[in-house]
Amino acid sequence: MNIAMVGLGRMGLNMARRLARGGVAVTAYNRTVQKAHDFAAEEGGAARAVDSIPDLVAALPTPRLVWLMLPAGTATDEHIDELLPLLSPGDILVDGGNTFFRDDLRRHEAAAQVGVRYCDAGVSGGIWGLAEGYCIMIGAEPDVAAVLKPYLDVLTGPGGNLHTGPVGSGHYVKMVHNGIEYGMMQAYAEGFEILAASQFGEKLDFTAICDLWNHGSVVRSWLLELAQRAFAADPRLESLEAYVDDSGEGRWTVNQAVENAVSAPVITASLFERFRSRQPNAFQDRVLAALRNQFGGHAVKRKDGHD
Amino acid sequence: MNIAMVGLGRMGLNMARRLARGGVAVTAYNRTVQKAHDFAAEEGGAARAVDSIPDLVAALPTPRLVWLMLPAGTATDEHIDELLPLLSPGDILVDGGNTFFRDDLRRHEAAAQVGVRYCDAGVSGGIWGLAEGYCIMIGAEPDVAAVLKPYLDVLTGPGGNLHTGPVGSGHYVKMVHNGIEYGMMQAYAEGFEILAASQFGEKLDFTAICDLWNHGSVVRSWLLELAQRAFAADPRLESLEAYVDDSGEGRWTVNQAVENAVSAPVITASLFERFRSRQPNAFQDRVLAALRNQFGGHAVKRKDGHD
Amino acid sequence: MNIAMVGLGRMGLNMARRLARGGVAVTAYNRTVQKAHDFAAEEGGAARAVDSIPDLVAALPTPRLVWLMLPAGTATDEHIDELLPLLSPGDILVDGGNTFFRDDLRRHEAAAQVGVRYCDAGVSGGIWGLAEGYCIMIGAEPDVAAVLKPYLDVLTGPGGNLHTGPVGSGHYVKMVHNGIEYGMMQAYAEGFEILAASQFGEKLDFTAICDLWNHGSVVRSWLLELAQRAFAADPRLESLEAYVDDSGEGRWTVNQAVENAVSAPVITASLFERFRSRQPNAFQDRVLAALRNQFGGHAVKRKDGHD
Amino acid sequence: MNIAMVGLGRMGLNMARRLARGGVAVTAYNRTVQKAHDFAAEEGGAARAVDSIPDLVAALPTPRLVWLMLPAGTATDEHIDELLPLLSPGDILVDGGNTFFRDDLRRHEAAAQVGVRYCDAGVSGGIWGLAEGYCIMIGAEPDVAAVLKPYLDVLTGPGGNLHTGPVGSGHYVKMVHNGIEYGMMQAYAEGFEILAASQFGEKLDFTAICDLWNHGSVVRSWLLELAQRAFAADPRLESLEAYVDDSGEGRWTVNQAVENAVSAPVITASLFERFRSRQPNAFQDRVLAALRNQFGGHAVKRKDGHD
Repeated sequence: MNIAMVGLGRMGLNMARRLARGGVAVTAYNRTVQKAHDFAAEEGGAARAVDSIPDLVAALPTPRLVWLMLPAGTATDEHIDELLPLLSPGDILVDGGNTFFRDDLRRHEAAAQVGVRYCDAGVSGGIWGLAEGYCIMIGAEPDVAAVLKPYLDVLTGPGGNLHTGPVGSGHYVKMVHNGIEYGMMQAYAEGFEILAASQFGEKLDFTAICDLWNHGSVVRSWLLELAQRAFAADPRLESLEAYVDDSGEGRWTVNQAVENAVSAPVITASLFERFRSRQPNAFQDRVLAALRNQFGGHAVKRKDGHD
Repeated sequence: MNIAMVGLGRMGLNMARRLARGGVAVTAYNRTVQKAHDFAAEEGGAARAVDSIPDLVAALPTPRLVWLMLPAGTATDEHIDELLPLLSPGDILVDGGNTFFRDDLRRHEAAAQVGVRYCDAGVSGGIWGLAEGYCIMIGAEPDVAAVLKPYLDVLTGPGGNLHTGPVGSGHYVKMVHNGIEYGMMQAYAEGFEILAASQFGEKLDFTAICDLWNHGSVVRSWLLELAQRAFAADPRLESLEAYVDDSGEGRWTVNQAVENAVSAPVITASLFERFRSRQPNAFQDRVLAALRNQFGGHAVKRKDGHD
Repeated sequence: MNIAMVGLGRMGLNMARRLARGGVAVTAYNRTVQKAHDFAAEEGGAARAVDSIPDLVAALPTPRLVWLMLPAGTATDEHIDELLPLLSPGDILVDGGNTFFRDDLRRHEAAAQVGVRYCDAGVSGGIWGLAEGYCIMIGAEPDVAAVLKPYLDVLTGPGGNLHTGPVGSGHYVKMVHNGIEYGMMQAYAEGFEILAASQFGEKLDFTAICDLWNHGSVVRSWLLELAQRAFAADPRLESLEAYVDDSGEGRWTVNQAVENAVSAPVITASLFERFRSRQPNAFQDRVLAALRNQFGGHAVKRKDGHD
Repeated sequence: MNIAMVGLGRMGLNMARRLARGGVAVTAYNRTVQKAHDFAAEEGGAARAVDSIPDLVAALPTPRLVWLMLPAGTATDEHIDELLPLLSPGDILVDGGNTFFRDDLRRHEAAAQVGVRYCDAGVSGGIWGLAEGYCIMIGAEPDVAAVLKPYLDVLTGPGGNLHTGPVGSGHYVKMVHNGIEYGMMQAYAEGFEILAASQFGEKLDFTAICDLWNHGSVVRSWLLELAQRAFAADPRLESLEAYVDDSGEGRWTVNQAVENAVSAPVITASLFERFRSRQPNAFQDRVLAALRNQFGGHAVKRKDGHD
């Protein structure tokens, strides 16, 4: 089993490690080439580094299997543009990054014109994937999915990969997965804030409550296990700023809901809360304050400290 | 026409002025008695001040008409407790404050036991009511509403008062009115923030846009006229803090929606945005940041400045 | 003053009428040409009909002014594709339809390549515009906006048109206007449902409440005047289905909020409620029912009538 | 170990069974007494039935331990009113039903006046509790919690019970638990509807997707295992009506969020979706349709089939 891994960021590097440690011959490439050499050195005979895309293509047996694991943005398209003229008909190109499914459809068509088999892999697992196995959704033509299957079985634990359907569907299902994740996280976050704000709040032991709920309650989940770890380390999370990033997939999920006329209030509210966390001086709130002041003479807080 | 006004706060004082200037003999009482004397002096012969509730009862012709205009909280009940033993059967007691309708039902029953006619008045109008007239919703038995009618006609402009139904209904309709107001304000606030955040945002003239929309567009309203005033004074509201109070009636509206199984996402979201504006370090956001860090190794912002 | 109106649908026909009746010479074209001839006959000397785009171009004095008022979809692009090769440098092309602002930017660039001045007009006013004047937002280069100004003054009442900024901004501001409109409508709709569901609901006179609120209350607006008309005709709207369409601009507004990381819970909830109104058998609700049944043994309603 | 179980509904009966089978001597009472006798017969020597509250009190060794497991509503208060005069100082009364925490505070005070130790137990577990163990949150004074501990260890699996804090806190934590559950369920429900509505939707195998996500993905949970069971039985849940009940605890959670000024958009949206699922002809949607018709002449669907 031979695979090339292009992109050795947080996700790509650990996936390459898991493949190499699982008996797959890994050829690694990264724009900053030292990362690839470090990885090859680390894994010994199971991996080697190449310094350029042409070297990578030359180093692989045909039909080649190239897995792209690049950051969102233009990097994936740039690498595909460089790869496509060098690859041979029948080679397989997997995009495992965070990609909007419409880009998969476009790339699939472009690759097909030169006989290259493009497919998409939605990869969940975060920093836990290396040790516990990733969870991977594959959108691909059936024969391509069949070729990938043994590699996926190395990357994931048992039951952790699925051929979801045609090209694009892997990223689509992964996108919705992340939307659901936003909603679940927000549900827990609201719940803990309601607990904290209550008359019992000061005394409640959130670590113990997470642990309890994970033993037999309806809300038990892996996210709640992670919450338990976080509360154990910092019982009221006082070391953290109330600032929450979003990765793009939540936005795509909301846009898809809108495009297909699906009401998705929870996933959308979860996304908006993340936006909101980054707006300490939200314009909308100043509009509200100004209106209250205009009609009711209600005091407003002014920057200069005067009411 | 004779009326007693109890409570000369922002609303009560202006209502008393409008009554006095409209030809009604006003007897004014306020816990801080100087306010009542100042008012009487200001209005000359049309108003007089009394220094206590017993004096007020003694000063009024029967059947008496007493209008309570007291701040939310326990003040109204305290004044009613003091008034009820002194009033005579047939006297009318109007609560014009921000009262939850269930308190009206309770007070109506207590007053009825001594023959006093309790009714409720939901009053809208803010600081504009003195000049332009209030908007008043009356929950009362029909004969009580009939007695009040000429007084209401002074307090409001033409068409600005309505007997909405039985006791409690005046405050109920006013409560929902405020819930709608929350939703409308939030709709405008979101719209202006979307404009401000857009690629056109920096150059858009919000005062001119308000003025435009108030000339022939579907969203024209009095709130939008107030927005125009606010933008004219401070084009990006930079003098204001993004801090929005809530007065209680929005909360009651949401609770009523919940109690009667009505989906009210807009009114509720408007209330939550106000809560949110007052939580610069929301616990829920720290829970989200902690979870992202746990599963994805995503950077969190730490209070100590380290990622 | 000479203008061509392309598209005589509900909006375009009334706008053409208002222009013709305001002293503008209107050349009208419509794919179904009879509509243009009917209009010309109706307006007598103030309007004439043409049967094709080339005829329209030939009939206009230069620099030409062509106003497109076509349904959303591909019609506008098709007409522009036909018009551009026939127009002369300096001619002005106005798109007054419901257009996403990015399409304006693209068309502006294409038109500029042949010297044609493309600009966008966001038009509000519905069926009331003919009599009361439209409300129009113009995104255009300043000299183009200056040429349009006298025409706009005919189309709108005083104060009813604004040059909002560069090309695209007219449709952008109109789009957000519609988003706000969604939010305001939903705020009223929730409020009236909370009233209807209350213990006072059966007896409340919604026509009278609308009328009242429009006299001095904070929530007075044109929409509330329309609500009053609707309730006057059908006090509990029992003749209507609970089915609400959406026109696309609400979706764009939500997408723009998401793209620019603006929290917009009210506008989004309003859009979702419209989606929801069209899903009598929502899949999400069946998922919820299934989950409740699985963990709690809670009864579910089955299609076959068994619990 | 001796306990009385009062109320043998779906939850109480299975809890009594689990106690009896775990070596606890159970005295069972139910208003419909036959249920208690059936249970006693089923469990043989480990359980006995009594026919009245006085019999129950007489049958228990002191200090008595009485667990109430009654439906929401007035039943619990009625049983407590009957029990309190018969119990002795030091007896323990546990309310394991779905109780609002303020009722716990009130009952605790009433019980304390006669020396009875009232405490509250929030019980999660549904129909799975008998076999897998319940998850129980106890609000109690510390010495009462200590007495209960061995009984709880029988009712729950290891780690499945917690003394959360003072009286009221058990039901409070359980209430928030249910609020979180609402949010998680709705997150999944929206996700599956977005999948179903997509261009890939028709072909997606939801059972396989649930199974996949439960192997290594971030959204793995017990609820998702239940979803898998539901989809396995009915791939598109076509046998179900889109009708979702709510049990009261979601409403309390929202009310608590409102009372304590916590923004809880996800939990609230989840509750509202349940309300919405039961309103096929929502008044708010008819208001929206009426307004659209008024300002835009947009077609409305009329009951009589005419537009």
